Formats: sequence, C-alpha cells, structure tokens
Amino acid sequence: MKRIKCELMYDGSRFSGYQSQLNGRTVQQELEKALYVIHKKTSVKTHASGRTDAGVHALGQIVHFDTSIQMPAERWARALNGELPADISVKGTEEVPDSFHARYSVKGKEYRYRIYRTPFRDPFKKAYAHHYPYQLDVGRMKEAALYLIGEHDFTSFCSAKTDKENKVRTITDITFIEQDNDLEVRFVGNGFLYNMVRIIAGTLIKAGNGRIEPAEMAFILADRDRKRAGQTAPAEGLYLWKVFY
Amino acid sequence: MKRIKCELMYDGSRFSGYQSQLNGRTVQQELEKALYVIHKKTSVKTHASGRTDAGVHALGQIVHFDTSIQMPAERWARALNGELPADISVKGTEEVPDSFHARYSVKGKEYRYRIYRTPFRDPFKKAYAHHYPYQLDVGRMKEAALYLIGEHDFTSFCSAKTDKENKVRTITDITFIEQDNDLEVRFVGNGFLYNMVRIIAGTLIKAGNGRIEPAEMAFILADRDRKRAGQTAPAEGLYLWKVFY
Repeated sequence: MKRIKCELMYDGSRFSGYQSQLNGRTVQQELEKALYVIHKKTSVKTHASGRTDAGVHALGQIVHFDTSIQMPAERWARALNGELPADISVKGTEEVPDSFHARYSVKGKEYRYRIYRTPFRDPFKKAYAHHYPYQLDVGRMKEAALYLIGEHDFTSFCSAKTDKENKVRTITDITFIEQDNDLEVRFVGNGFLYNMVRIIAGTLIKAGNGRIEPAEMAFILADRDRKRAGQTAPAEGLYLWKVFY
Repeated sequence: MKRIKCELMYDGSRFSGYQSQLNGRTVQQELEKALYVIHKKTSVKTHASGRTDAGVHALGQIVHFDTSIQMPAERWARALNGELPADISVKGTEEVPDSFHARYSVKGKEYRYRIYRTPFRDPFKKAYAHHYPYQLDVGRMKEAALYLIGEHDFTSFCSAKTDKENKVRTITDITFIEQDNDLEVRFVGNGFLYNMVRIIAGTLIKAGNGRIEPAEMAFILADRDRKRAGQTAPAEGLYLWKVFY
C-alpha cells in the first residue's frame, strides 16, 4: 500500500461543508466517489487536515488516503481531476511515508478572511467575501488583533458546539492586507477551534466599527465566555489557505 | 417623465444572456421585474447598450428607462438593488436628457477576455475565465493582434447569425495584461459585432499556440469568411467592461 497526500482547492459555495453527512453534498463524498471509481468500485477512506463548514472555501486543504494502485504519485492529481466535479480541484499529489497523517501530523494552519466594502453588493464576490459596506477602521482592527497573538485559552472565540476539551491555541500572526475596497485578514497559528477564525473576524469587525474598544479584547479572552465575543462572521469570507506539517 | 441611466454589473454564469426570451432567466427580465415592483405593478421598458450572451459577464453594462416616479436619480441604485437578485448589482444611476439612448448613443465599448493557465482547473475561476493549460506565446498573440487595430471589415470575425449588414468596425486598442497564470486581453473599439470578441480571442489563441502565424491575421481579415478565423472562445472568459458615450 502507498500513502498519497493530496493538496485540494474547492469553492465551498455549493457544498454543505467538507465532511460526509447524510444530507447535502460534501467535498469528502465527492472525493471518495472519485476514488471509488478509480479503484474499480472499491471504497477508499480519506483523512483531511480538518473539516470546513458549509460555504467555507479551501485553497490548500490536505487529504491523505492509502491505495494499492500502482501509479506514479504525481499522476494521481490528473486521475482525480478527471473524476471530480468542477468546484473541486487537486493541485498536486505526492507519496508520503505511513507515519504521515493529514490530521494528526498538522503543525499549523493559515486561514484567510476576506471582507469587501463597496457600497453596492458585488455579484462576483457575493459567495467569496463578506460584504461589509459600513465604516471600518482597520487601524483599530490591527490594534485589537495584537491582543490575540501568542498562546491563549480561546474559549471566548470557540463555538459552544465544539467537542474539544483543550481550548489553548497559539496564534503566531494576524496580518491585514488592504487593496482598494478589499480587506483580507490572514491568521497563522498552531491550530484553530471550531468557528474560531469567523468569531475572531466578527469581533475584529466590532473593534473596527467602534462598537468595542481594541483593549477590550484582553477582557473578552480572559472571560472565557463565547457570549463576550462578536458574531460569527459569514462563512463565505473564510478560506483554509495552507496546512503546515 | 425622467430618463434614468443605470450602470450595472452582473455575473453571467446563471443567466441565459441579457435579453428577455421565452425560456431561461435573463438580466433584462430581472431588471424589468424589479422596475415593475417599484412602479407598483406597472411595466417599464428598459434599453441596454447591447445584449450579452449566456455566461458572459458585465462590469459596466449601461441601461436606461423612463419613469414618472419622483425620486432623486442617484437613489434609484439603492431602490433597484433592494429588488434585484444577488447576481446583478446597480453600481450607479443618474438622470440623463431625453436625447440620451443607451444603445443609439454608444460611441465605443471596452470588452475584456480572461484566460487562466494553471495546469489544473481552478474551481474559483471556472465560470469567470477560460481555462487554457497549454502552451501560449503571448508575444505571438500581441503580434497577431496588431493586424486587427484600425478600421476593418470584420466579417471573418463575426458570427453568421448576425443581422448587421455593415461589418466595418474600428478597434482602437488591444492590450495584454499578464499576471502569474492569468492573461487578460482588453479590446477597445467603436463597436463589436456578434461574437466578435470571442472569435478574435479564439483566433489569437491559435496564434499563441503556433497553429497559425501572426501574419496570417491579415489574410483572415481580407478573406471576409467566418470559417477562416479560429473557434469562438468560451463565454465565461468575456466581460463587457465599459460603454463609452
């Protein structure tokens, strides 16, 4: 058996998320359907770096699977792309040792959250960025973000629906890229809890529009209470950008 | 009655084109439906700078209509956006004199054709650019494009389905913008025939991939025969960018 690591991108707008479920179209189901065809009607189990929610996009999701098919590892990308629907694309494939696991070997991740601020809705961005046409002071957002850098208990920024006990994570970097009406916030860290990036994005927006002071971030973190942070920002702005191993 | 000029953008991917027709969803129908609601169930006729085909996008389509509603002209944008579906957006509205006509007053147009060249399909670009993962020499495309600049009879680059008698048009500029794997070709001219930009794009691709010599463009033009030019490039790469008055 060979272990194959795949780098995937997908447009999340027409998926009910990454992980297989009874109702709704998912990325995992499409991927396993493609593998089933390639393996001549034998099921192949895939393992991803983590799930993504409905509407969330990925530029660098990582998945692994084991196969007995003899084929140069780099040719798997083309084989899979031949079977996958147009909203999923395999960017590359490589053989990895058995010790590699797409989920357990993760050392860190980068997520990006995109906001656009034109006064009118942009039909080309509607599923790919969060439309926020109101006042937003990016300087205040940057100041607020500084309180999150480092190792913290992120309970306040985690959906109550999580099954994770340990809410301590390290964010190493939050960067703001502004171009015309577009704002992209890049988050790099050793791991992110359920909805964590979207809750942070929603809270940074509150700092940007003046509804909280940047310094309040310290108290929100310390309170370890989801109700203290801002709303979960919409799924369409979120991208799983890169997984580090 | 006031005459209102609207600048529209739309994502063409889920439309059967601009112009109203019996079957399929069109931009004109959505726009006239919105006007019908705003005019309390009175039909209002719209006039566009020209039609666009199924799948073709617009960043700066211009439409006018006449209305008896008393409302500051610039507020029409918000009123229409409140009624329009998410894949159409009105960027701005202004009052114009009765002598203005969205179609008959046109002095020129800019179209852009987008090609992307990653080896794998990009799920985020599939409906917004033409995927061409093969060899493409942009220098040769530029050379071929030079033969089209100026006033010419563009019969060879016009769909046989046209109802236009006079096929003489002037292209003032064709510019190539390359960024990483993206190539955008910008066309400015006094008017474009049915499918003309897509047929030119398909023919420039043939010059770029070596299947014709750039100098052959002169003969293709001179022959005034649609069969001499290249294939009509796919609709998803085309954008009506700007209309000049």
